[in-house]
Formats: sequence, structure tokens, C-alpha cells
Amino acid sequence: MGDVTDTDWLVSLRRELHRRPEPAWCEFYTTARIVEELQALGVDDITLGPEILTEGERQGVPDRETRDAWLDRARETEVDDAVLDELAGGYTGAIATIEGGDGPTVALRVDIDGLPQREADGPGHQPAEEGFRSVHEGYMHACGHDAHATFGLGVVRAFADADFDGTLKVIFQPAEEVVGGGRPIARSGHLDDVDTLLAVHIGLDNPTGTVVAGMGGFYAVSHLEATFTGESAHAGARPNAGANAVQAMATAIQNLYGIARHGDGATRVNAGEVAGGTASNIIAEDAYIEGEVRGETTDLMNYTRDRAEQVIESAAAMHDCTVDIERGSEAPSAESDDAVADVVADVAADHGGVTHVAPTGELGASEDATYLMNRVQDTGGLASFVGIGTNHPGGHHTATFDVDERSLGVGVDVLTGTIEDLFRDEHDA
Amino acid sequence: MGDVTDTDWLVSLRRELHRRPEPAWCEFYTTARIVEELQALGVDDITLGPEILTEGERQGVPDRETRDAWLDRARETEVDDAVLDELAGGYTGAIATIEGGDGPTVALRVDIDGLPQREADGPGHQPAEEGFRSVHEGYMHACGHDAHATFGLGVVRAFADADFDGTLKVIFQPAEEVVGGGRPIARSGHLDDVDTLLAVHIGLDNPTGTVVAGMGGFYAVSHLEATFTGESAHAGARPNAGANAVQAMATAIQNLYGIARHGDGATRVNAGEVAGGTASNIIAEDAYIEGEVRGETTDLMNYTRDRAEQVIESAAAMHDCTVDIERGSEAPSAESDDAVADVVADVAADHGGVTHVAPTGELGASEDATYLMNRVQDTGGLASFVGIGTNHPGGHHTATFDVDERSLGVGVDVLTGTIEDLFRDEHDA
Amino acid sequence: MGDVTDTDWLVSLRRELHRRPEPAWCEFYTTARIVEELQALGVDDITLGPEILTEGERQGVPDRETRDAWLDRARETEVDDAVLDELAGGYTGAIATIEGGDGPTVALRVDIDGLPQREADGPGHQPAEEGFRSVHEGYMHACGHDAHATFGLGVVRAFADADFDGTLKVIFQPAEEVVGGGRPIARSGHLDDVDTLLAVHIGLDNPTGTVVAGMGGFYAVSHLEATFTGESAHAGARPNAGANAVQAMATAIQNLYGIARHGDGATRVNAGEVAGGTASNIIAEDAYIEGEVRGETTDLMNYTRDRAEQVIESAAAMHDCTVDIERGSEAPSAESDDAVADVVADVAADHGGVTHVAPTGELGASEDATYLMNRVQDTGGLASFVGIGTNHPGGHHTATFDVDERSLGVGVDVLTGTIEDLFRDEHDA
Amino acid sequence: MGDVTDTDWLVSLRRELHRRPEPAWCEFYTTARIVEELQALGVDDITLGPEILTEGERQGVPDRETRDAWLDRARETEVDDAVLDELAGGYTGAIATIEGGDGPTVALRVDIDGLPQREADGPGHQPAEEGFRSVHEGYMHACGHDAHATFGLGVVRAFADADFDGTLKVIFQPAEEVVGGGRPIARSGHLDDVDTLLAVHIGLDNPTGTVVAGMGGFYAVSHLEATFTGESAHAGARPNAGANAVQAMATAIQNLYGIARHGDGATRVNAGEVAGGTASNIIAEDAYIEGEVRGETTDLMNYTRDRAEQVIESAAAMHDCTVDIERGSEAPSAESDDAVADVVADVAADHGGVTHVAPTGELGASEDATYLMNRVQDTGGLASFVGIGTNHPGGHHTATFDVDERSLGVGVDVLTGTIEDLFRDEHDA
Repeated sequence: MGDVTDTDWLVSLRRELHRRPEPAWCEFYTTARIVEELQALGVDDITLGPEILTEGERQGVPDRETRDAWLDRARETEVDDAVLDELAGGYTGAIATIEGGDGPTVALRVDIDGLPQREADGPGHQPAEEGFRSVHEGYMHACGHDAHATFGLGVVRAFADADFDGTLKVIFQPAEEVVGGGRPIARSGHLDDVDTLLAVHIGLDNPTGTVVAGMGGFYAVSHLEATFTGESAHAGARPNAGANAVQAMATAIQNLYGIARHGDGATRVNAGEVAGGTASNIIAEDAYIEGEVRGETTDLMNYTRDRAEQVIESAAAMHDCTVDIERGSEAPSAESDDAVADVVADVAADHGGVTHVAPTGELGASEDATYLMNRVQDTGGLASFVGIGTNHPGGHHTATFDVDERSLGVGVDVLTGTIEDLFRDEHDA
Repeated sequence: MGDVTDTDWLVSLRRELHRRPEPAWCEFYTTARIVEELQALGVDDITLGPEILTEGERQGVPDRETRDAWLDRARETEVDDAVLDELAGGYTGAIATIEGGDGPTVALRVDIDGLPQREADGPGHQPAEEGFRSVHEGYMHACGHDAHATFGLGVVRAFADADFDGTLKVIFQPAEEVVGGGRPIARSGHLDDVDTLLAVHIGLDNPTGTVVAGMGGFYAVSHLEATFTGESAHAGARPNAGANAVQAMATAIQNLYGIARHGDGATRVNAGEVAGGTASNIIAEDAYIEGEVRGETTDLMNYTRDRAEQVIESAAAMHDCTVDIERGSEAPSAESDDAVADVVADVAADHGGVTHVAPTGELGASEDATYLMNRVQDTGGLASFVGIGTNHPGGHHTATFDVDERSLGVGVDVLTGTIEDLFRDEHDA
Repeated sequence: MGDVTDTDWLVSLRRELHRRPEPAWCEFYTTARIVEELQALGVDDITLGPEILTEGERQGVPDRETRDAWLDRARETEVDDAVLDELAGGYTGAIATIEGGDGPTVALRVDIDGLPQREADGPGHQPAEEGFRSVHEGYMHACGHDAHATFGLGVVRAFADADFDGTLKVIFQPAEEVVGGGRPIARSGHLDDVDTLLAVHIGLDNPTGTVVAGMGGFYAVSHLEATFTGESAHAGARPNAGANAVQAMATAIQNLYGIARHGDGATRVNAGEVAGGTASNIIAEDAYIEGEVRGETTDLMNYTRDRAEQVIESAAAMHDCTVDIERGSEAPSAESDDAVADVVADVAADHGGVTHVAPTGELGASEDATYLMNRVQDTGGLASFVGIGTNHPGGHHTATFDVDERSLGVGVDVLTGTIEDLFRDEHDA
Repeated sequence: MGDVTDTDWLVSLRRELHRRPEPAWCEFYTTARIVEELQALGVDDITLGPEILTEGERQGVPDRETRDAWLDRARETEVDDAVLDELAGGYTGAIATIEGGDGPTVALRVDIDGLPQREADGPGHQPAEEGFRSVHEGYMHACGHDAHATFGLGVVRAFADADFDGTLKVIFQPAEEVVGGGRPIARSGHLDDVDTLLAVHIGLDNPTGTVVAGMGGFYAVSHLEATFTGESAHAGARPNAGANAVQAMATAIQNLYGIARHGDGATRVNAGEVAGGTASNIIAEDAYIEGEVRGETTDLMNYTRDRAEQVIESAAAMHDCTVDIERGSEAPSAESDDAVADVVADVAADHGGVTHVAPTGELGASEDATYLMNRVQDTGGLASFVGIGTNHPGGHHTATFDVDERSLGVGVDVLTGTIEDLFRDEHDA
């Protein structure tokens, strides 16, 4: 093994996944396509979504209509309908397990969902130029999870027929973008025998050739959905008779972004999706804000959430509206263990394609891999979140995001080498 | 003729139309159902939308997808597919002409479209209790145009087999709610031979038994659609890299409602339908406001529009966004002619169901009947906008709006009597 | 009498008053100067502020420090210190009474206060060019009350030595700009024997030569003072520890201007004077808004006031601040009596300097003359509010406001002629 | 020397200074009182403000009227009028130099200004209870600069009659709170021969007994003053004729606090002092915002400043106002040198009153000591910013801030001991 990855296979796989981005809990095609590949690689032990997602723990699941529409699209492709049937209801994702004999259990977690972001279509955007731009208009792999899934399959391929002492679990996690898939997997029991967990992310402003051995700085995050209800009225004849939900919403948005920064560390707030009203000549009766708050620590997130809720409630009261605030999915903070990061760093340092190894790094964002890391660490195991650099033209979550496909091989090699060492070290000890 | 209207027939017709409200330019079922009834009443001369709507003059036409969806729904009913075929493309509405011999030409204009407003479903809302609540969830006849269409058919019925000297044109106008249908009809030539035009509105806070003989106070109105374009960014990792279209939109909304009131008279502004963003963790790249401005005079409307555009452009600039502002449909002011209102007042005073006749009244809202009134007045004719009172539990454009069905007969009688007098007076003169 | 006014005397008087504008309840110099002139004209019966202002009814009185500062300034001029002593405490204004024998009692009310508005100082502004610009920097006769006081003295002069049957009272009212002086005079008893009351205003967008015989359309008005209290904090180290009163204030301002316009008539809202905070590096602990609401009717004013208070309270709650809202001075609506306006119109029509007589007009603003008009009308008398046109380069309450001094004579003549007729008519009857 | 400080003398001195807080550039009494004490301690070489403040480099100097008022207050105390005369014009502050023979030059910088913050007056606030609350109502030593000045004098006292090899300069710097005094001293040449600079701050959420040997994390800061100019108008009659500067200001405030947080590090923004308008019935013609922006780095500060200026300009444009933005005083970032911090840490560790020594700490705020530190470091010297913990009941810049006076002795001892070691080490080397 080592630097012998079949790059063409990785690139082809990544592009195929890139063309069909699916949002959280709707990764029907993506899961089925991964399963197809796992079967082709000879993996017997494949556990699908319904068995890896603890009931009642999924966060941010869209409504049935949305799920069904995506399932219908998946059925139009050539993936296995029987697999799709099992995923119905949004039970996406899978775990591939490969038993190599006595030895430690090592898990690799990759996430697989896309984003509701329109993909760029101009010159200079490689997916558009080379024909693998998203076919799902308005949706895009704008955070590199197509590459992550490819990493997972690349690692499976490396171990599928190999001799090793231990057990490898590759977790293809759904719904990271809504921090929704981590918790139900963390609480499913599938991690309770894991000695070491690796999670991975591409890019993050690190260029191709850089590897970050163990990241920290995961923001705690919580989603909020506020639904304002006022009174409609004719906007010309009796505007005074209404209770304007759009005005309440706009006041809330302005003041959400104005929540005081905190002296103890970084916070974030975003009103990411908003809407209100039905016609230009009616005072709006309804409006909503789907947003999120983050904090460098859970306390900072809670501070921001408390302030956000106060802003929203006061904005509603100001405009004679009522408001219902639902707290959506959440994720905690986490830290990587140095012991694991050291192994990653050693392997990376020996790789020809790696020009810089950073021992640690700050994510400065949220990730529900933290649920899995915390679970493994709570049950006595270790964890590290690995960054694989890639030159990306646009920022994460933007229309021109793309990955440098040279990073695909680097990622698979570094992860594979690390897992080999983890099997070997444990065996030696 | 006179107070001999068949009330049951009017009530039944109104309820049928009430169950199937259709938004502007999508009145496929409504038009076809009216045509069906006109044919049953023996009217030969029926001109459909494509021939009454001057090409290029329609305002506020929705996109093809929306139109097609409504056309499909209409096809699921029992109305004549051949008529629907003619209306395709949103060429809705019709004019029924009845020739009675030499004499003046009198036109009656009624509007027929519904609103994007969810209808109430609780106890106390008669349509819900008596089984004729809207079957198109989220849409509603919340302004009484179901009653207006019924007025039109009631008047046709009165003259269909009658002896009279003159010509009657009953105009079933589409798309009043977006002030979209008036202009293309006004410019079609169909009004150029009209000596007297009557338009009519039910309710307007006048109780059952009240008739307003000639209304004025039509607000000039203009629709605006502002589309903000910013830059998306990851809301956790790099919020600074975005240009937040939702923030621009919220700033604009706050300041639109804050446009200074004008010393010369009443103005209105409304951000009636707004939306932005795609996901809670992405800084929003896009947002829009569909709104309107009004003024007691065209100057006051222009003042408000100029200020609104300045607010929107500055809000975009503030947040590094660009904005595209499209001016949508417009309507001017108009006044009723006393000479016609006097005829209405006399007829109303003699009606047993009328307890109060107001010679004039202020609409305090907008209406694209003004295009038709202006056209007739510009070509030497006269016009009056008649108000028929009705007890309405909720305000216009609200979920609990309803009409007192006793007003249906009153309206048909007063309009019929007025038209009879107009034929007679002119003949006598 | 008639068109024989000494214009030079009027112009000189007006300019003298113009140079020393004093804000509400601080008209120390102005009152004393008027008294001096009344004495020069031989008026014996002069009642000063303390006896014409009912205790506890004054509205909008400034604090002692402010009053004392203005009193000190007045003492630096040549007016009579003994008169100033009587006015101390802000008991400004005076009533001059001239007894002419049996006959009706006619009152003329003029107001005398200036505004906290900096006066223009550039070319084209006559007071600056001709040396009578305000010597009280930041204060200005920007509403023409200098001309009003001159009208009052001009009328006194006309009757001082004249033969007439009746009693004339000329009321020099303080504190109109804060709608503060009308109520305490109305309730003092001094109006209870008045048969006819005239009040007067110059300008109001009517040009020189126009007279409005009887104005209506007085807006009801109410002042509001909101004081926000939060928590200070170091803006760099711990912004989160503060409760930002400036943010609360800004949110309130934005939403005050956004209060929904009312279908029943015109409303107004203004946050006219605001401030908050103490230093750029401290989160502001305190802020205030001095504002006002108006309505075409008292109900419309109350609607706006209720909404304003809700906005302010919610804005405070949103930012963890408390707020104290004090309702300040108020004034009701009023209407002129046609019977009096007809007399004014007849007199005006005969005046050589009058080119246009408007029987009625809408003020579209507020005036506490309404307290006096209501009082006289409630006790069986009649009242009219007369408008004397003048070409004014800038709008009322702006830095470039000025009057065309030709209007001074016109105003005195029309008022004098009207009062003569009122004495004569009553006598004849 | 060592732990032998006369605590009573320090406490008495600190309380005397606490009673008379003076804002930036108005520290007339404070400077003169310090000079008096220096003279009593036998210091010959005292350089006053005019000679230590480079002309044209002072930032944030208040207007003459303000300065004169404070100078007048200082003259009412018993300090030396001749000294006050030299400080006139706001040339406050002083440097005391003590020559000890050949050896290194060590400087200690303390700041001496107070804040425009009203001091608490209730039970539990020691200065109120023990009679040394501020006599300058509305001003307060709310950041501990009274203690800093006391530190400076305590250190002078320790070296005044001592034997040592080197030169000691104690810099009593004015105007730190407006980051105004650091730059003119840094550029005066007085630091160019300094080998080691110590600066000091009390409190900062560190409890009594804690010493921070070398702080970093100084935020770059820049002050902004935005002055909006619109058009006044009568708020009742013609609100539309105005250009509302208060509305522009409120829009700017709302959006300033909403400037996007930055992924690279902490930023701050504050609209600390704002005001607008002159009367409740006039549309406001003028308004201003005095604010500041900060960043963990100068780049982050510049990002925030650029965004702030864009917000302010767009808010003005939105409301037809013009705006003038003046950039006020600024300060850069800085870092302490470990070599100096190590000496501080060693000395502190040996002190009986010190229970915890932190090698480094983050200020998380701004300080214009950075100008001095940068200057010394740029000319080959070293610098450290030392934190002396104190239990403070209220936060910095709040009404209940106070210091635990036990910290006075600790601070003087640690600084004195450190300076002794610096003289000795250098001498030894």
C-alpha cells in the first residue's frame, strides 16, 4: 500500500458524486452509489441508514414532500432501487466494516451531503468546463463532501483485500451541513468499540500539499427557526389593521446581526433563510427566519442563543405579532488528541505530495463530527480531525468552490497510512 | 325588471366561484365557468381574453410554470377544455355584449381574480361552515370578486331577453389585484364606443344596505420588485467574505416603512412579499422584495416611489450588494362623474333593501378600473364607480373576509336599474 | 382706521423681536419688550404671565437652569427688570385689555416664542443681510411668531385711542411651539367672557396677498419623552456585559417612523431630538428620544401614540434596557366658525393688498390655539383661525424661513377691520 | 527596598486623585498634583507636557471651551498655578527622570486620565462610603488610572534617594482613554535612549494577588466621528420636505453593530456617543455618531473601519443627507518581550502578596502604550506590559468600578523589584 492509489478512479468517482449533490437527509443517490461501489470492492458488511441512525435523534430532517422529491430523482438514475427503498424516510448514510483479525478498531468518518447553493457556470469553474457541474440546479457540493466520500471509498479499497490486524469501520455520514447526522450515529452504539476515530475535511483555506494533523476550534452551533404570525390587512385601505410579520422579521434580522460580540471569544449569528408575506398589496401575516448561532465554546453559543431569542421575541411584540421559536439541530465543541495527531503528522511528513504538516489548526466553524469524537473519547478512545489541504478557487459554501483533485490521492494515502500505523502500533504494544 | 332577482341562483353561483379562487392571470376556471353561464343565458357575443387584452400591455403576469399549474387545475374541473385552450398563456377574462337596438352603449366592469391568502377554517367563517371554503389552499376570494363576477352575470341575466334601446357590454376583467388587467382592456378599443361606464365594488367597510353612488379617492399605485445580489460565504468560518443580501433586504424593509409621510396627502408603502437566502449556515447571496407604493395622487405615488428606490439602492450599497429594481404594474387615479352617480343614487334610493345612499365616498385604495374610467372619460363618455355595502366580518384581504349574501341581489338590482335608466334617459333625450 | 398702518413701526418692531428669539417659557425679553410697547401705547390694563397661567396646567416647561440662563440674557438688555422679576419661573406672556364701552368682548390671540433652530447666515437670507439675524445662536424665529407679536401690537395701537363699543383683549401667548401655553390660559377664566376669538398665523405656504378666513385641519398632537437605561461596559474588553441603550434607541427610532399609516386619515411621528452615551469606548448606559405623534383626529393621534409606546417598550426589552416614557404636552383638534370667517373674508376682500381670499384652509399641523378656540366655543362664543399669507423663502421651522414684511400691514389691517366689524355688528344687532 | 512600601501614603494619594478625575487632555489638577508630589520627593528633573508632546501628534483633543472649564476647576484647588499655566492648551502629563549613574535606561509608563462616566453613589461602593467619590459629577476614575499614577509615584519614591546604576524615567501619560497621549510621547525622542520599557495596568478581571508578567492581545483601535447633515422641516406640516439626519443616524447605528464578524479574529464596533435634532416638532437637520472600531490585528481593525464607513455613507445617502466622517485617534497592536516578562515573573513569584503569576495574558482591548512599546522595540529596546490583579466589584468603565487598595503596594513592589533587577542585570552583563 502507500502512494499507489489509482488516481483516475478517485477523480472519476468524485466527479460522479459531484454531479449529483443532495441536501441533508436526501442523500439517496449518493448512499446507493457508495453502496454499489462498496459491493464492487467486495465489502460484505454494509450497514445502512435505518440501522445506524438512532430513532428520534436525527436533527434537521426536511418534510416528506422534499424527501420524496429527492428520492424520485434518485430513482431516475441507475442505482439499486432496493437500496433506495431501505433509505426511504431520509435514513441515508452507511457504515462499511472490514474485519482484519484481532487488533484495535479504527473508524474513519466522512460526510456525504451537498448544499442548497447554485453552482457557478462560467469559464474558469472546472466542473462547468469539464462537464461535471451539478445537474441539480440550486444544489452543489460546495464544501467538498464529494471528495470526503471519495476518501472513504479510497481507504476501503486499500484495506478491502489487505492483511491487517484489527477492524476498520468507514462511516459515510449523512446530513453534516445541518449538523444533523452526527448525533444519531454517535448514540447508535456503533462507536462504542472504536479505539481510534479519524474524521477528515478537505480545504479550509489550506493549500494543496498541506496536512493538518489534528484540528480543534470546532464552534458549538445551534439552529433556530422563528415563525412570526401577525394579521393580514389591505395595504392600501387599512394598513393600520394589520400586524406586519415582515416588519417584525426585518427588525429581528437587523438586531440579530447586532448582538454584542463577547469578550470571552468568537461568536456567530446568521439569518440564513428568511421569507414572509404573500402579495405586494397585503400586509404580511406570516414570516420566518431560519438561522443559527455559534460560539467558540458552548457557553458562548448559549449566550448568543439567549440574546437571539430575546431579540426575536421583542421584535414580534413590537409589531403585535406572536412568534414561535424552535431550536433545531445542535453540535458541541471538541478537541483532537495529540497522540493520534502525532501519527497523522508522521505519516504525512513521509508523503511525497505533502509539503507542509501543521500539527494543529483551528476550524473556526462547526462540525457534528464533534458528537462522534466526544463519544469515542468518552468511552476511552482517541480521536483526531484531519485537514487535507486543497487549492480551492472559491470559499466553502460559495458558487465557485472546487477542489484540486491532486488532493484526493494525498488524502487517501495519508488516511490509509495512518490507519495502518494505528493497527501496527496497537499490535506491537 | 327591478327587485325580482333570483337570489338562490346568485348565491349558488357566488359560492361556486368562491370555492375556486384563482390568482391574477390564472382565472382559467373562473373565466370558463362564466362563459358557460353566459352561453346558458343565451349570450351570443362573447369575446375572450386574447381579443380583449392588448398585446404587451398586461402587467404582473406570472411565469409560465405558475400559469400552467393553474391551467392544469382548471382542466380537472368540468369546464369546457376548448375555452381553456383559448385562455392559455394567461389571456383570461371575457366581454359579453348584448345588442338591444339603437341607443347608447353602457358598459359594466367587474373583476374576477382571487388572492394568495389562506382562507379561515374555523367556526364562524360561513364558507367553512357551509362547505364552500376555497379548495385551493393558500388562495382565497378575500376581496369579494366572486360577488363581482356574480353581479356581472346577474346583470346579463336581466338584459339577456329584455327589450331595450342600446348596447350593453359586461366586462369580466382579470388581474385586478395586481392592477394588471385594466390597462390592456382600456387600450384594446373595446371601450371607445362606450357612453357610460359603471364599475362596482362590494364592501369597503360599508354595511349591507348602503350604496355609494360614485366613489373617488383611488390611490395611484405602482408595484416594485427589488432583487438583491450579494456573495455567499460560510457563516461560521468566513462571514466577512460574504455580502449579505438578507441584511440589505432587512435594512431596506425597515427604511421603506419609514419613508416620510407627505404633507400633501396620504401615501402608502408595503413590502408585501419578501425572501432571501438558502440555508442557515450560508450568508445569503440573494434576496428580494415585492412591494408597492401608493399615493392619493400620482405625484404622491411618484414621491413615494422615488424615495423607495433610493432606500433600496442605498441598502444594497451599504451591504456590498447590487440590486435590480423592476417597476411592476401601475394604475392612475380617477374620479366618478356626478351625472352618472346621480342616476345610481336615484335608483338606489327607491330600492327596498337600501337603507342609506352616500352620494360620494373615498376608496382609499387602488383599482385599475381607473384605466377604464379614464379611457371612457377621455373619449367623451362618463363613468362612475359604485359601492355596494355588505357586512363583512373580516377586512378585505384577510382570512375571515366574507360577504353578506343579501347584498348580491341589491347589487344586481341597483346596477340593472341604473343601466335601464341610462338607456331610457339617453333615448328620451 | 383701515389701511393706514405705520409700516415702518411694524417692520422695526418685528426686526427687534426677530433678533432675540426665546424658546418656550423663556420669552422673558420678548414679554417685557411687548409690555414696554403696550405702556408706550397707553394701555393701562396689562395682566402678566403669573395671573394668566393656571397653576399646574403649563406643559413642556424647561428646567430651572435653562430658564435662569434665558432670564439672565434678558437682564442684559434694556427692558424693565421689575417686569422680568414677575415673569421669573417661566410665567411669560401677557394680556392687554382695552375697554371701549358696552358691547361684545373680542379677543385676539398671538403667540410669541421662538425655536431651537440655527438661523441661516448666508447671502439671500434677509435677516442676515440686513443685520437683524438672531443674536441667540442656535435659536430662531423660524415660524413667524415675531410677526404674530407685531400683529398683536399693531391691533392694540389701532384701538388704543379709538372709540368703539366693546372690550378688546389681546393675548400674547407663550410656549406655542411646545403646545404648552394654550391650556393654562384656556383654563384661567380670561376667555370665559369672550364672544369672539380670533387667532392668526402667517405664512403656511400661502403667498403674500392671500388671506385664509377660517382654518381647520388642526392635528391633535402629543409629545413623548422616552428615557432608556441600560448598563455600561468596556466596548473593547466586554461588550457583552453591557445593555446598550443606544442600540435600543436606534431600534426604536427605525420602528417609530415605520408605524403603519392609518386608513382613516393622516398621522405623524417624529423623533425630533435624541441622544445617548458618553464616550466612544463605553457601551452606552443612557439614551433618550424626545418625540411627538400627531393625528388628523384625536383618535388617530391616540392610535399613533399607542403604537409608539409599544415600539419603544419592545426596543428597550430587546436590548435588556428599561425605559421610562413620559407623555408631554398635548393639544386637541378644532374648527373655525363660518360666521366669523365670513366677516374676515369680507374685510379681506376689500383690502387693497389682498389678492386672494380663501374661505377655508387646512393647517395640517398642530396648534394649541385649539385649547382657546374650544374654550370659547364651549362657553357659547365663536372662533376663527386666520391665515395671513406671506412669501417665505424657506419652510417653517427651517433655517431660511423669513417673512415678506409687506404682510405685516396686511395682517394688522385685516385683523383690525374684522374686530371693528365684530364690534359694529354686535352693536347693531 | 522591596516589600517596604508605605501603604497608607499610597492609599491616601490614590484617594486624592480618585476624587478629582479629569478627562483626556484636561488632567490639569492631576498633573500639577503629581508634580507637587515629585517635588516633595526631591525629584529635580521634571519635564512637563509642552516638552514631551510632539506638536501635531496629539489625538482626540477637546475644544478650547472644554479645556478651559477644566483648567478653571483645577485653579480652584490648591495646586501650583504656575504649573497649571504651563499645561494650558491641554499639554498635560509629565516625565520624571532620576539619574543613578552609568547603566541602562529603564522607563515606566503610567496613564493618568479619567472617564466621562458617572460614579456609583450607593451603599457598597467604597469611594462613596468612605468619602472619596468623584467630586466631578459625570466623571470618574473608572479604569484605575488613579492607581496607575500612584504606582508611578510609589516607584519614584523607591528610587528617589536610592543608589542604583542607570537612569529611571517615569512617564505620567495623559489621554490614554482616547488613545491620544501615546503617539505624541512616542515621537518626542524621550524614548529613544530607553533600553527597557514597562507599562502597567491594574485589574482587567485578574483578582488581587495575580500578576501578569507580559500582556499581549492589544486591539488596534480607531475612532470615528460621523456628522450627518440633512434638511430640517416642520414635522407636522411637511415631513416630506426634510432630510432626516436622525433617521440616517439610527440606520447607521443598527448596521454598524451588524457588521459581519471576521473569520480571522476578533473585531469590535461601538457607537458610544450619539445625538441628533433640536426639537420634537422639527425633522432633525443634524446628527452625529462618535464611535470606534477595533481589531485583534491592524488588518482586522481596517476591515471593520472600511465597513463602518461604507455603512455610514450609505445610511446618509439613503436619507438624502450628507455625512462627514473624521477618523480620530488610533493605536496599533503590540506584544511584550519574553525577556522582560521573565524578570517580572521572577520578581512577582518572590513577593508575599502574589499568589499567582501568569506569564502571559490577552488584554482584549486597546491601549496606546502600544505606541511607546513599538517605539522602544523599533530602536532596539525591549518592553513588557504588566498586569497587576485587583478585586474590582464592577467592570472597567462602569459606575461601580473600584480597586482593592491592597494591590497598590503589590504593584509598586513588583515594578520596583523588576526595575532593580533590570539595572542589576544590565550592570552585571
